[in-house]
Amino acid sequence: MIPELIAGLSGLLPAGAVKTGAFDVEPYARDQGPVLTLQSPSAVVWVETVEQVQEVLRWAHTNRVPVVPRGAGTGVSGGAHATTGCIVLNLERMNRIIAVKPLDEIAVVEPGVINADLNTAAARHGLMYAPDPASYRISTIGGNVATNAGGLRCAKYGVTRDSILALDVVLADGTLIHTGVQTFKGVAGYDLTSLFVGSEGTLGIVVGVTVRLRYLPHSEQTLAAFFPNVQAAAAGVLAIGQARVQPAIMELLDGMTLSALDGAHGSNLRGRGGALLLVQTDGFGAEAEAAVVRTVLTSLGGTVDSQDVGEAARLIDLRRHSRGDEVDDEFRVGEDVAVPRSQLVHYIAQLERVAADHSVQLKVVAHAGDGNLHPTFWVSAREGVEGVARLDLALDESVRLALDLGGTITGEHGVGQYKLRWLPWEQGEQVLELQRQIKDVFDPHGILNPGKAITARA
Amino acid sequence: MIPELIAGLSGLLPAGAVKTGAFDVEPYARDQGPVLTLQSPSAVVWVETVEQVQEVLRWAHTNRVPVVPRGAGTGVSGGAHATTGCIVLNLERMNRIIAVKPLDEIAVVEPGVINADLNTAAARHGLMYAPDPASYRISTIGGNVATNAGGLRCAKYGVTRDSILALDVVLADGTLIHTGVQTFKGVAGYDLTSLFVGSEGTLGIVVGVTVRLRYLPHSEQTLAAFFPNVQAAAAGVLAIGQARVQPAIMELLDGMTLSALDGAHGSNLRGRGGALLLVQTDGFGAEAEAAVVRTVLTSLGGTVDSQDVGEAARLIDLRRHSRGDEVDDEFRVGEDVAVPRSQLVHYIAQLERVAADHSVQLKVVAHAGDGNLHPTFWVSAREGVEGVARLDLALDESVRLALDLGGTITGEHGVGQYKLRWLPWEQGEQVLELQRQIKDVFDPHGILNPGKAITARA
Ligand SMILES: Cc1cc2nc3c(=O)[nH]c(=O)nc-3n(C[C@H](O)[C@H](O)[C@H](O)COP(=O)(O)OP(=O)(O)OC[C@H]3O[C@@H](n4cnc5c(N)ncnc54)[C@H](O)[C@@H]3O)c2cc1C
Ligand SMILES: Cc1cc2nc3c(=O)[nH]c(=O)nc-3n(C[C@H](O)[C@H](O)[C@H](O)COP(=O)(O)OP(=O)(O)OC[C@H]3O[C@@H](n4cnc5c(N)ncnc54)[C@H](O)[C@@H]3O)c2cc1C
Repeated sequence: MIPELIAGLSGLLPAGAVKTGAFDVEPYARDQGPVLTLQSPSAVVWVETVEQVQEVLRWAHTNRVPVVPRGAGTGVSGGAHATTGCIVLNLERMNRIIAVKPLDEIAVVEPGVINADLNTAAARHGLMYAPDPASYRISTIGGNVATNAGGLRCAKYGVTRDSILALDVVLADGTLIHTGVQTFKGVAGYDLTSLFVGSEGTLGIVVGVTVRLRYLPHSEQTLAAFFPNVQAAAAGVLAIGQARVQPAIMELLDGMTLSALDGAHGSNLRGRGGALLLVQTDGFGAEAEAAVVRTVLTSLGGTVDSQDVGEAARLIDLRRHSRGDEVDDEFRVGEDVAVPRSQLVHYIAQLERVAADHSVQLKVVAHAGDGNLHPTFWVSAREGVEGVARLDLALDESVRLALDLGGTITGEHGVGQYKLRWLPWEQGEQVLELQRQIKDVFDPHGILNPGKAITARA
Repeated sequence: MIPELIAGLSGLLPAGAVKTGAFDVEPYARDQGPVLTLQSPSAVVWVETVEQVQEVLRWAHTNRVPVVPRGAGTGVSGGAHATTGCIVLNLERMNRIIAVKPLDEIAVVEPGVINADLNTAAARHGLMYAPDPASYRISTIGGNVATNAGGLRCAKYGVTRDSILALDVVLADGTLIHTGVQTFKGVAGYDLTSLFVGSEGTLGIVVGVTVRLRYLPHSEQTLAAFFPNVQAAAAGVLAIGQARVQPAIMELLDGMTLSALDGAHGSNLRGRGGALLLVQTDGFGAEAEAAVVRTVLTSLGGTVDSQDVGEAARLIDLRRHSRGDEVDDEFRVGEDVAVPRSQLVHYIAQLERVAADHSVQLKVVAHAGDGNLHPTFWVSAREGVEGVARLDLALDESVRLALDLGGTITGEHGVGQYKLRWLPWEQGEQVLELQRQIKDVFDPHGILNPGKAITARA
């Protein structure tokens, strides 16, 4: 980008807010998703106030400069990857918790607040911010909103969208708008709040978030049920549903995942079974619910250990980290399909077939209560282009299968950049075109995170 | 409308589907909301299939004829009122439950299905469709979706939007699109489903709905707590929250409402207190939660009767009917503001002051757990224009007060036609304009329910 342009931007902001050195911008070229072609941003811009975000957007709008918003960069779909000629708008310093209002059961935060920090602040009042992506200790509320992040306790408490009451958003031209309400319910006008939630930075920059808080559960009970294989564990998920118990958490980990965890943490999970179903009930009925779960899973052949509180917390914690094992000598893609719950057992069996057919490695974890699966496929880096080609075939086939079963290409991670090729498999051209037209309304020059979340016109 | 035009429409549909006689169309000229100027529809059109809806819309789009979609006409904001030269598109005969899928915990229905009928079908499997407007026995799922209806158990289970997974929608030009997913979670593309939910028939005709079902609660406990006055009862709502108990239902009825119920049903509620707080806990922890609620409310001076199941059901039932008492010799407007929960007590006190200041009658019921209040203001018809003027002043002032406290003009009923004058009090011009532009994307000729839900350009 021409230096004069960047100089103009720097002049609008405090000293040091704009960095262009290769060494400075490189860490912000990508998020944790697969990279197709690595791009370097022209600049990374750190903003600290709403007014600064408006300044940057006015400048970008006038000069037609692409803007890639970025929270913590923990996204796994490439939503925060830099694109040609872009600046990265880094929101991590807008990290103030403006207010926790215990009587209203809401909180107001800046977008860069880390999910776990909001939860710590809420916990002081016996409250919690329910959506808890496994990345809750490192990801931002702004990023969670932009991806409509899910998490472990979504089956019971809903996804990010279900906890978002109002947003402050800076539009592409720098206009600041306020959507939504400070109350639990509100239906005035169209639901612009939900439109921004999950729009992956392509419709506006989220600069303020009002969330609904929930009550910290009265008590929690965690059960670990080991099964001989993953199909049996998946059947357990359906059986708990048929017993009409709604756990807060219901996570499924296959044998490969258990082995990986054992390798990383020195545990002996794989020795205890071929698959693990981790169930947490909570609330005033937690014990009664856990008793039902135990009976149901035992009768299906599960080995259920009652965990003391420490062990239970540790297992949930291990689960939260079961994706974070990138290995340099492998090509690895984590997926995020969701299927109707009844298809869980069948789909997991199909995944194993697909992996075998294409000679790729597979491990699966699932937010099983939601039918949301994270299969990770990988090949050794030594296999080179040929290996990547097989990997791609396996990925494509697994996604097709999920769609054929009535599923979706992404349950919670977003389309970002990496999943664009699958979006037209799921959505008809008319639906895609409506989205482009909505994008045009909000961002007429297409400067906001171009090439992400929705497919361009043919 | 010119008869040839109507004849053209009739030719597209089965015999008898289009009616134009004054006697035939009159019942469809309005919903249950206040009428500003009564309009007669040019025709009422009964459709039975998606294809017929598409035919009607293609015809209307080509001929620029306004279309007012209509479910059961129980709306209370005038959203289904006929407008100049319109046809009313009546969806009540599209009332098939296409599928209940117990293992997937979803159902697929046509828009004309009555909420209670869906619940009856779901209950056979131990499931429920959670959003339960007080009109659940008479309103349609399509109408519930179009208004994003709330209900009694929303505080715990969410509003309509939180239970809608996917929609089939016929656009203004007759195009059929599918939004959303058949799974609990899905974030592919923008959330068009939520955009249609609550859009009051102005963006498209909902012709198919996939809903998430929840588990019928393991048990329920209902408490009726009588308080000397409504402020004390409202304080009870906050105290239950501070005890971190989340009831399924938390309804507040003031003394005037109790008297009205007594008059209509021969009960003696008013004799038992000046306000009633009706609390239902549910689930495996229902009893433990009810015990906490009882202690909390008793310590605040409430008189808590444990209700046997029959009495509990009867009280909830009475509450569900506490709005349905239109009286011919009165001008009466029911409102639907919501305020942050901490403002409940203060706001109710203000309402009583406003009613006194303007010499109008007032009664209040509230979905108190959500901070969503339904004050009804009325004057005797004998007071004529002068009375209506006072009524309007009281309404306006009560809405202003709610907004000043951080509230909204409508918690669940929608803007419709009647609340348009308040919408710009709540939303800035830029937000209003974005909504108009979205409307233009979906309905370029403005034929879908014109003059509803959003304000026109100045
Ligand atoms: C170990 C690990 C576990 C994970 N577990 C989960 C999980 O359980 N559930 C889940 O849903 N995800 C999970 N993720 C993915 C990721 O953490 C989430 O997508 C998270 O919401 C991203 O937040 P972030 O702050 O890192 O955003 P980023 O990665 O920086 O950005 C994500 C997207 O949002 C946009 N964006 C960011 N901030 C804003 C803003 N203020 N305004 C507008 N647009 C913005 C970006 O442009 C990008 O498109 C996991 C990731 C890791 C590494
Ligand atoms: C006694 C009583 C109690 C009530 N209690 C509640 C309550 O607790 N909570 C609550 O939220 N509401 C309540 N209401 C209001 C009303 O019942 C709801 O708004 C309900 O959702 C309307 O459904 P309906 O089928 O009657 O729709 P209608 O009144 O026919 O239409 C409502 C709106 O939706 C549009 N519409 C209808 N069907 C479609 C469709 N298929 N596609 C597109 N647009 C469509 C109409 O054009 C109109 O704008 C109550 C009403 C009464 C009379």
